[in-house]
Amino acid sequence: MKFVRFRVNNTEHTGVLENEGINEIQGNLFEHWTYTGDTYSIKEVQLLAPIHPNQIIGIGANYVGNSADLPEELPELPVFFFKPVSSVIGTGEEIVIPKGIHEVKFESELAVVIGKTAKNIEEIDALDYVFGYTIGNDVTAPQYFHRDGHWTIGKSFDSFTPLGPVIETELDPAVVRVEAKVNGVEKQNSPTEWMIIPLKKMIAYLSTVMTLQPGDVILTGSPLGAELIQENDTIECVINEIGTLQNRLVTAK
Amino acid sequence: MKFVRFRVNNTEHTGVLENEGINEIQGNLFEHWTYTGDTYSIKEVQLLAPIHPNQIIGIGANYVGNSADLPEELPELPVFFFKPVSSVIGTGEEIVIPKGIHEVKFESELAVVIGKTAKNIEEIDALDYVFGYTIGNDVTAPQYFHRDGHWTIGKSFDSFTPLGPVIETELDPAVVRVEAKVNGVEKQNSPTEWMIIPLKKMIAYLSTVMTLQPGDVILTGSPLGAELIQENDTIECVINEIGTLQNRLVTAK
Repeated sequence: MKFVRFRVNNTEHTGVLENEGINEIQGNLFEHWTYTGDTYSIKEVQLLAPIHPNQIIGIGANYVGNSADLPEELPELPVFFFKPVSSVIGTGEEIVIPKGIHEVKFESELAVVIGKTAKNIEEIDALDYVFGYTIGNDVTAPQYFHRDGHWTIGKSFDSFTPLGPVIETELDPAVVRVEAKVNGVEKQNSPTEWMIIPLKKMIAYLSTVMTLQPGDVILTGSPLGAELIQENDTIECVINEIGTLQNRLVTAK
Repeated sequence: MKFVRFRVNNTEHTGVLENEGINEIQGNLFEHWTYTGDTYSIKEVQLLAPIHPNQIIGIGANYVGNSADLPEELPELPVFFFKPVSSVIGTGEEIVIPKGIHEVKFESELAVVIGKTAKNIEEIDALDYVFGYTIGNDVTAPQYFHRDGHWTIGKSFDSFTPLGPVIETELDPAVVRVEAKVNGVEKQNSPTEWMIIPLKKMIAYLSTVMTLQPGDVILTGSPLGAELIQENDTIECVINEIGTLQNRLVTAK
């Protein structure tokens, strides 16, 4: 099932996408929802990010270039970071390059949407706590990374976390490929099996630290090939089973 | 005005504290609220953290030990970090030391509660966007700091962000002292004028990066004197005009 958020007539709605039609729903995605009976064509609405995340957690450098490079021992302490919920935009919206710089980095990622409260869960149960999957673009201004290693400001600018186009609840995250194209040219294309910290382990580990909550979004890391991009470039993050998250870059006015 | 959240009869409420009485309110703290007419004695309720933050932003090492040490030039890129909203507890609740370690660090801080959407605001206007002030304890497990500089895991454990006891809306943040006592012994006691990045500048700077939103909480840094503390220690974070945020430490079971 593909969940979308969308704007039509200046109001925001939630719905289920089937082919090109959207069946509007109401209620809480994670608890109980019902169809309103209203339907829209995808052509008449503006898609929004499919969720207002409760919070956004990312993992650093989590892919190798081929399965032979997967490490035998996992890092004891993976690098995690948070991105602010204010940085979220949807597909079709503009990524704004901050004043004073001319390039930002894209990172196409499989994004997990947590659906149930998770604390100290086992790896084998981790996917039971997932509501669905979307695509995330972890946009970064490395110029704003602190020399002591803190990434916070460089990852926190408004528009730096495109999410979408839909939340797909039927996905098997172990068998998808994460792709990115800049102006139509492929830059990233890796299967999720090249993740260093596998998805289930990542969710289980995080749940030993913090209580994961419905609406938390986990960006699971980006394949090799991310680059700096500039004004007027168009970045497409693609997972075939979910769709294409497309954003154009503009400069801050 | 002092706003509180509290639990009574297993339900959560919001109210205004006057002397020892709480007048319950309903509505949105930042937009419109009204008195319900119900009143409680503070003795019959359990105080909770006074807010469910939208998100929590902290600043690293932001105090000097006396006014003579204040730098003439401010750092170009301050160290900011996020803490998860799942880490919040209220006064009187227990700070849980994670499994496998025996000490955590406390940091008593003045915490700002943003009340209005703020983007690219001027320093001189910054306090107009503040709803009020509470006390925060930025608890940390430095054992979980990543060697590359990332603090995320070390600051993210459940119970690592005590907030409270009230949100005071009448405070002048420039003339208060931030104190901490461990088992009754004073460990921190500094005026906010010893902040390296002053409060207004911090809010204005953050608003150039991200759109600050109602309910965002900014932890403004901790005075010199923070230490490691252990099981059964009691930490009190004090700002006289706001109150005392008291928490006891226990070990994870």
